[in-house]
Amino acid sequence: MTSISKAADNAANKAASNKLGLHGFVWEAGWDREQCARAIRNTGALGFDLIEACALDPSTIDVDFTRRELERAGIGLTFSLGLDADTDISSGDDDKTRRGEQKLNLILSIARDLGATHVCGILYSAFQKYAFPATSAGVARSVEVIRRVGEKAAASDIILGMEVVNRYETNVINTASQGVEFCRRVGLPNVRVHLDCYHMNIEEADVGAAIIETGAYLGYFHTGDSNRGYLGSGSIDFSRVFRALVRSGYAGPITFESFSSKVVGQPLEGILGIWRNLWDDGHDLSAHAKQFTEAHLKAAREAIAHTHSPLV
Amino acid sequence: MTSISKAADNAANKAASNKLGLHGFVWEAGWDREQCARAIRNTGALGFDLIEACALDPSTIDVDFTRRELERAGIGLTFSLGLDADTDISSGDDDKTRRGEQKLNLILSIARDLGATHVCGILYSAFQKYAFPATSAGVARSVEVIRRVGEKAAASDIILGMEVVNRYETNVINTASQGVEFCRRVGLPNVRVHLDCYHMNIEEADVGAAIIETGAYLGYFHTGDSNRGYLGSGSIDFSRVFRALVRSGYAGPITFESFSSKVVGQPLEGILGIWRNLWDDGHDLSAHAKQFTEAHLKAAREAIAHTHSPLV
Amino acid sequence: MTSISKAADNAANKAASNKLGLHGFVWEAGWDREQCARAIRNTGALGFDLIEACALDPSTIDVDFTRRELERAGIGLTFSLGLDADTDISSGDDDKTRRGEQKLNLILSIARDLGATHVCGILYSAFQKYAFPATSAGVARSVEVIRRVGEKAAASDIILGMEVVNRYETNVINTASQGVEFCRRVGLPNVRVHLDCYHMNIEEADVGAAIIETGAYLGYFHTGDSNRGYLGSGSIDFSRVFRALVRSGYAGPITFESFSSKVVGQPLEGILGIWRNLWDDGHDLSAHAKQFTEAHLKAAREAIAHTHSPLV
Amino acid sequence: MTSISKAADNAANKAASNKLGLHGFVWEAGWDREQCARAIRNTGALGFDLIEACALDPSTIDVDFTRRELERAGIGLTFSLGLDADTDISSGDDDKTRRGEQKLNLILSIARDLGATHVCGILYSAFQKYAFPATSAGVARSVEVIRRVGEKAAASDIILGMEVVNRYETNVINTASQGVEFCRRVGLPNVRVHLDCYHMNIEEADVGAAIIETGAYLGYFHTGDSNRGYLGSGSIDFSRVFRALVRSGYAGPITFESFSSKVVGQPLEGILGIWRNLWDDGHDLSAHAKQFTEAHLKAAREAIAHTHSPLV
Repeated sequence: MTSISKAADNAANKAASNKLGLHGFVWEAGWDREQCARAIRNTGALGFDLIEACALDPSTIDVDFTRRELERAGIGLTFSLGLDADTDISSGDDDKTRRGEQKLNLILSIARDLGATHVCGILYSAFQKYAFPATSAGVARSVEVIRRVGEKAAASDIILGMEVVNRYETNVINTASQGVEFCRRVGLPNVRVHLDCYHMNIEEADVGAAIIETGAYLGYFHTGDSNRGYLGSGSIDFSRVFRALVRSGYAGPITFESFSSKVVGQPLEGILGIWRNLWDDGHDLSAHAKQFTEAHLKAAREAIAHTHSPLV
Repeated sequence: MTSISKAADNAANKAASNKLGLHGFVWEAGWDREQCARAIRNTGALGFDLIEACALDPSTIDVDFTRRELERAGIGLTFSLGLDADTDISSGDDDKTRRGEQKLNLILSIARDLGATHVCGILYSAFQKYAFPATSAGVARSVEVIRRVGEKAAASDIILGMEVVNRYETNVINTASQGVEFCRRVGLPNVRVHLDCYHMNIEEADVGAAIIETGAYLGYFHTGDSNRGYLGSGSIDFSRVFRALVRSGYAGPITFESFSSKVVGQPLEGILGIWRNLWDDGHDLSAHAKQFTEAHLKAAREAIAHTHSPLV
Repeated sequence: MTSISKAADNAANKAASNKLGLHGFVWEAGWDREQCARAIRNTGALGFDLIEACALDPSTIDVDFTRRELERAGIGLTFSLGLDADTDISSGDDDKTRRGEQKLNLILSIARDLGATHVCGILYSAFQKYAFPATSAGVARSVEVIRRVGEKAAASDIILGMEVVNRYETNVINTASQGVEFCRRVGLPNVRVHLDCYHMNIEEADVGAAIIETGAYLGYFHTGDSNRGYLGSGSIDFSRVFRALVRSGYAGPITFESFSSKVVGQPLEGILGIWRNLWDDGHDLSAHAKQFTEAHLKAAREAIAHTHSPLV
Repeated sequence: MTSISKAADNAANKAASNKLGLHGFVWEAGWDREQCARAIRNTGALGFDLIEACALDPSTIDVDFTRRELERAGIGLTFSLGLDADTDISSGDDDKTRRGEQKLNLILSIARDLGATHVCGILYSAFQKYAFPATSAGVARSVEVIRRVGEKAAASDIILGMEVVNRYETNVINTASQGVEFCRRVGLPNVRVHLDCYHMNIEEADVGAAIIETGAYLGYFHTGDSNRGYLGSGSIDFSRVFRALVRSGYAGPITFESFSSKVVGQPLEGILGIWRNLWDDGHDLSAHAKQFTEAHLKAAREAIAHTHSPLV
């Protein structure tokens, strides 16, 4: 019996080292009171540590209500979003850049009021299929804006995560090493790289090596399989992903993200290209994601613990 | 809420399709009353459906006590063993062959009394490192013995599983296709192939293809990673293993097996070559094995369900 | 010596079973006489069996010159293209559909004059990032057009390949099973599925299973790694890909495709999202692709040949 | 044309960084003049840089003849062997240990006369299935002996490779980390770890990580698939193996090893447990191994070169 409770203790301790998160889009597209309450309660009921809320339309967020629901469920919150063409801070266009910075600052102030720990996503450019490459001038402007926003975020202990996404969603940061270079240029400890294995599966030469080389720059991690369905139901080698996360000493959130057009609707259905739905029961999907993640995190820790074996 | 209970129902229904088992050696080397009780209770407490007991020394088994413990824990039982040099029915030696058949029959009678559903392992030869190849005459004798024992087993609704093991543990059946051929020669529906992915990782050209081609001959399955430690902490691609199991329609037991010299001691330590121990807490090991197995079985079912997607 | 020549014979015989092709875009963006001659000669010099030429702008193709160059180099030709918004036969728009059919017929007549064996690609919709899902009416029109074009193609012994591409390049056929369903609806033996492992890595639950289940519908195959760079320098498990191709009995072309913005320029750079270049020497890239392909095809054949091993 | 020769140059330069070797057992079991000549000539004809000769029975080696054949073929030589029970320097038995040291010294003197660069294998214990674990006293004696033999080897610029093999072939060094620890205890720069991916597939938690952590201790590398057949026809993920070799900066030999009982006969057939033969044409097997190795080494170099991509 002692041994069984020890096992439970171990599990508890280890789970503590990475908070497990769930993207609110598995539950709801919007954030009115009813949606907010349902999404937070469901997430808490499944045992996740945090919910990632979409900050694309911050005006819809009732800050006090949301805080109370988070407290009731006993979970934390992170924010994610992508800019759009009109607020593209990598565009080189003064007006768009100014509007982008305003939008990021607005979201930051709401994130602070909600006690969010991370604001992540495509914060550095529009979230769209570009037709032309990024320009160095545009990227330089993006770095400057993110530095100013990042300084404000630091004052609220918020980490900004620059999400590395595939070529069809931005033309600025498609690989972990580009993310690290972007963060180096920004030069703030709270501006970090946000990796997502769905995107890495398309862009990285070696997913595991990319995670390890990101190292201390890694600030947020999204899981999701190659086809954005159930974890483990696509092409991604999750043993490699989780071993790299453990080996790199990453202790931040690991958040599961998956989309169904039935939940998110337009315009996200179009931007993300969701032409097929791989699930219809968000509870079943998310409960499995948590189980799969815990099983692989534990396996990864054991694999690394046993890489070294002594001679007799 | 409905949706959460639906998820629970799904999980329950699906878990029903393969019974999950645990080898008793994660708990105890022997089977005296205290050992028997501890092993069965621990296995049941972790939620496994059955315990696989070692039948190497059947004289140590208290049948009535074991049955009561199984009933109390609400789990089933399977048996496994390997013959030894002295009872090697593939040896071509009359005395050894006769002794081997007697041993198998003795075990079968105990298995029947205990309500065991499967008797598995290296039933067709010695469990040892051979120095010379098997002979066709020896294999032919082995087939005959297994046919006679199999007919008796059928009378008690017991499946015999011919375990496919690596070249260092037998010289008779090292691959799934050899297992199928052996069973074809025996020609009984209750004499089936017992696959173990630890061994398959060494011998098979393609682990997934081997499982699929075994098809309806598959009667028992052992999980275990390449280094016989925690599931997922070695080299085996479990996505491939579980997808093949699901794709092949296999509905029999899936039993986790792992060894520590601290538990099993000699002579098994020597036969199995356990020179390093990759765990010291059998509860933690087994609880994780169950979680990992369930997460991968579910992922495999989803992967296969979504291989087909309709046009709009 | 006999044995060495036997090995050479084996290699020759086996290479004969799948023609190996190379996409002309590793050499040139256009097809003026100089470009055409260079692309064909380089492809032949590396030992490929065929060149895949881009048929996006058929007016630039000098048919007689191209035929002579192909004959001189001793290689064959295939065509590939995607329609555009203005010729989108899945749009449901009458004018666009008519223009699309005209374009396909024009390309078909050039393909016939050039002796092309296959016309492949996104023939069934526009080659673009869509913002809305396909409609059943639009897909039904696409099927009708492809049936009419396919009947003409049959008269010239040309196979039409419906390329299965990722969600960012079409909203009609994203998975092998959708490709099979499309071809079933068309109902012609020369209208087949064209698979590309770059796209499969994003969309398929199980790349190997998808190839095997496509089976006899498979008419053309593109290799390319997950990041579209050197074969083997990304995430794709090519052992699985080639074993599935061999296991399915596929005997058609296997063509390597990779893009550099330095070669293709706009608008392809934009449509394909080529923001990073992973090679600058097309010879080195292509010579390696051929070596890698041959080594893996051979390994796959051996793996499958040795899945079955006899008992002694 | 310049570009094609540049590609050839690249290939040549890169091939130079790791010498590619072939184990003589793909050709012959023994080393009489005829066998020696055939094995060396065949190896050279396939373009390998070196042959690995079995030094189990050094009395059969005609040193002058072998040197002339090596010179004629323009290739180098390495030696490999395992001790036996009677010469087991890890046994703790004085006589066996003395005989083992004598045997190693004898082989070393022949290796020196032949210009061998490496003497590798199970030099530190018997090459057998043990029934009991190693003892610390025995291992300490083994370390001492290897240190004395290693000092002599250093005088002839010979590297000793401590081969890490699976649990069924030794009880002393089963993992890379044990190999590193053994070499650390010996404390000589020319006593290094010899890794073999066939064995690693059984014993290591993470094959790639084990190679990288061996780092500068790595002195020799054996390729071979999980079933010891054609490279790429088993379970091993060679992308991972070769990326780790390149990433670790390993510049030593990479030697292909595969066994057929038809060539090696007894007692090796028994020690190695070769109950099935996966090839019958050593030329075809070895030519493919070279092609597969070169294709994967190149792919690994490209993958690593492209792990870092700059921002615009």
